[in-house]
Amino acid sequence: MRLGMLIIGTELLQGKIIDANTVWLAQFLRPWNLRLQLTLTVSDDNTDIQAALQMLYQRCDVVVCSGGLGPTADDITKASLAQFFGKKVIPQTSARQVAEGNYLRFARTLADDHGYGYLPEDFVALNNPSGFAPGLWFTDTQRSLLAAPGVPKEFRDMLAEHFPKLIAPMLKNTGAIHLLNFRTRGVPEERIFKELAPGLWDELAAHGNVSSLPHVLGVDIGVTLDGDVQTKTARVQEIMRQSPVAPHVWHEGPESIEEVIVQTARDRKLTFGFAESCTGGLCSHRMTNVSGASSVFWGSVVSYDNSVKQNLLHVKEETLKHHGAVSEATAMEMASGAREALGVSIAISLTGIAGPLGGSAEKPVGTVWVGVASVSGVKAMRFEYKGDRETLKLRFSQIALYTLLDELKI
Amino acid sequence: MRLGMLIIGTELLQGKIIDANTVWLAQFLRPWNLRLQLTLTVSDDNTDIQAALQMLYQRCDVVVCSGGLGPTADDITKASLAQFFGKKVIPQTSARQVAEGNYLRFARTLADDHGYGYLPEDFVALNNPSGFAPGLWFTDTQRSLLAAPGVPKEFRDMLAEHFPKLIAPMLKNTGAIHLLNFRTRGVPEERIFKELAPGLWDELAAHGNVSSLPHVLGVDIGVTLDGDVQTKTARVQEIMRQSPVAPHVWHEGPESIEEVIVQTARDRKLTFGFAESCTGGLCSHRMTNVSGASSVFWGSVVSYDNSVKQNLLHVKEETLKHHGAVSEATAMEMASGAREALGVSIAISLTGIAGPLGGSAEKPVGTVWVGVASVSGVKAMRFEYKGDRETLKLRFSQIALYTLLDELKI
Repeated sequence: MRLGMLIIGTELLQGKIIDANTVWLAQFLRPWNLRLQLTLTVSDDNTDIQAALQMLYQRCDVVVCSGGLGPTADDITKASLAQFFGKKVIPQTSARQVAEGNYLRFARTLADDHGYGYLPEDFVALNNPSGFAPGLWFTDTQRSLLAAPGVPKEFRDMLAEHFPKLIAPMLKNTGAIHLLNFRTRGVPEERIFKELAPGLWDELAAHGNVSSLPHVLGVDIGVTLDGDVQTKTARVQEIMRQSPVAPHVWHEGPESIEEVIVQTARDRKLTFGFAESCTGGLCSHRMTNVSGASSVFWGSVVSYDNSVKQNLLHVKEETLKHHGAVSEATAMEMASGAREALGVSIAISLTGIAGPLGGSAEKPVGTVWVGVASVSGVKAMRFEYKGDRETLKLRFSQIALYTLLDELKI
Repeated sequence: MRLGMLIIGTELLQGKIIDANTVWLAQFLRPWNLRLQLTLTVSDDNTDIQAALQMLYQRCDVVVCSGGLGPTADDITKASLAQFFGKKVIPQTSARQVAEGNYLRFARTLADDHGYGYLPEDFVALNNPSGFAPGLWFTDTQRSLLAAPGVPKEFRDMLAEHFPKLIAPMLKNTGAIHLLNFRTRGVPEERIFKELAPGLWDELAAHGNVSSLPHVLGVDIGVTLDGDVQTKTARVQEIMRQSPVAPHVWHEGPESIEEVIVQTARDRKLTFGFAESCTGGLCSHRMTNVSGASSVFWGSVVSYDNSVKQNLLHVKEETLKHHGAVSEATAMEMASGAREALGVSIAISLTGIAGPLGGSAEKPVGTVWVGVASVSGVKAMRFEYKGDRETLKLRFSQIALYTLLDELKI
């Protein structure tokens, strides 16, 4: 089954919001061994919507459509879909009932109809578990369409409720599939496959589909397997573990660094916290995105101003004066100060320059000191990265998390 | 000029990464009064790429293409583009020179060619300011194409360097354009236009193109004006300020809440910080994304564990025992403790339940107490939201920032 996505939203093309539904849908489809074939994003413009539907139905069997189902004048999805399938938009009692049900759940009554009671002929209204606008479902012998609101929460909840009932039963079982993921750090994509291990790609490709995903935090090497998944998995793992890339692999699996840290800290019965300057709370924010982090992550001090470094982390005034805030000495005092103040097994500190201002020849924008305080003592390491402010904050936080993971494994 | 975007990347359709280039490009195009007409995302599949190019050139004059220019076997953009335009891929000295220049800048030598010296006939190689793979440029009488790597940093830097020289000169001046943006909070989209101000949309539409953007943090009402922009701006502002929506507008303009807070705090010469529990550092992270925040944001305590609330914020043990960590009393003690510990004018505290675990009938997941300590005294307010863990963290942080902004304006 070929599956495409039509995203209707002027705001996306105007750069007002970022599309989060595609990545969610792609991940949601995995258990069914389904992949998105292609996606199209158009504005609230009927001509473009017609052309996009044309293209999608030439290449896909099922289309998931998002956006333009709301109550305002720029929400034209329903009319456009009706036109494409040669249907009229008519009032339908079932749609009205779904809308009323959606309102009832929020303890409100449907005073104005908002057009929610109208549907293209032969379309079915879908319950919206987390909003007001009903979704749409249409299927004939050749093609099927599920339209959901574009608001991410509503899109997700609607797909989660209706996809398994409506679309999954159409699937033929295409057999087991298995995704292997090797997460590497510290070596660029082209070095991996051209210098470090020139034969690796072909070796892996003998067993499955290989992909390489470079991103700001490292390179993920993926291998998709089918058929005799167990034997192939063992073989691929062996190839990877014997390759010169092995020392750069920090995790085998889809888990994020945050999840691996929480699991490792739990296994080792260790707690941790941060003293964050240049990252401004990002390390702590990332760690607390993991549900259950509270058992191992106890807290942090965001010491943006030097007075906070002194008062809460007990960094000495003369250290700041003689070495500066961005220095080995300050990073070390921040780490040991945080370990004591937070009462944790391991404290990681960061002090650096995220820019765009504040750099110098000696300490350019992108410089960061990462300190570690643990039962083994206190140390600090210097790193230098390139990028804009947000990229640097992310890279700084990532090296801090790698450092934490290394320390947890000691 | 109609502009389209082709995104080539299996990883996007597999849900491994989120597309950040579209939103960037859309924002980048604004000064030229250019809008993205549509975008297409396809995998590294030549048949899909050909179909996408066909569709894009039926509807656009210029196509920006991203992805698939790297050195690995799944990077097929160059060959696909050559096929579409009926060209052969041939070695070109100029391309080789651009690649060598890119390498030199990173103090490395181009040992292996990585295919970077090959280009489709009549294509031009573009310097890559922040990576190795050259970009591509092709133009004939009917259409133009700029292809850049998909890595966000490289995509952005390449567009920023080459777009003004290559594409901007083709534009006819289409006259001034002006975007007005009214940022509202606390009232859903349909209530604004159906209950609160049923005539508002049409009233605004008499002066320009109206759009309504609901997102997790509020609703933005946009009006795009051309022609006599000055008169129209004044008229639209008057309509908005006299409408029943006015009390819900917290800002007129494109600025984020973080930027408005930094500017307001500077104007009022006030400093601030946070005591964050359930948001785990997100408020601080968001504030420090603003360059120059350091002049007003001094720091925070992320007090995830109760021991940190007690030791660093001096929340009393009996308060935690009698009222619980998620309570008015704890929020107030956290706020006043943070104000003292951080030495700031205003401290905002948060304590709540981001879930998915930890909720109860009395304090369900989504409950949050926001405390404020300032020269006016200490208070706390209770809010309740719905959503998954990440959404709740975001909503919690947003109400904290609104609360901070309100307090800064007193």
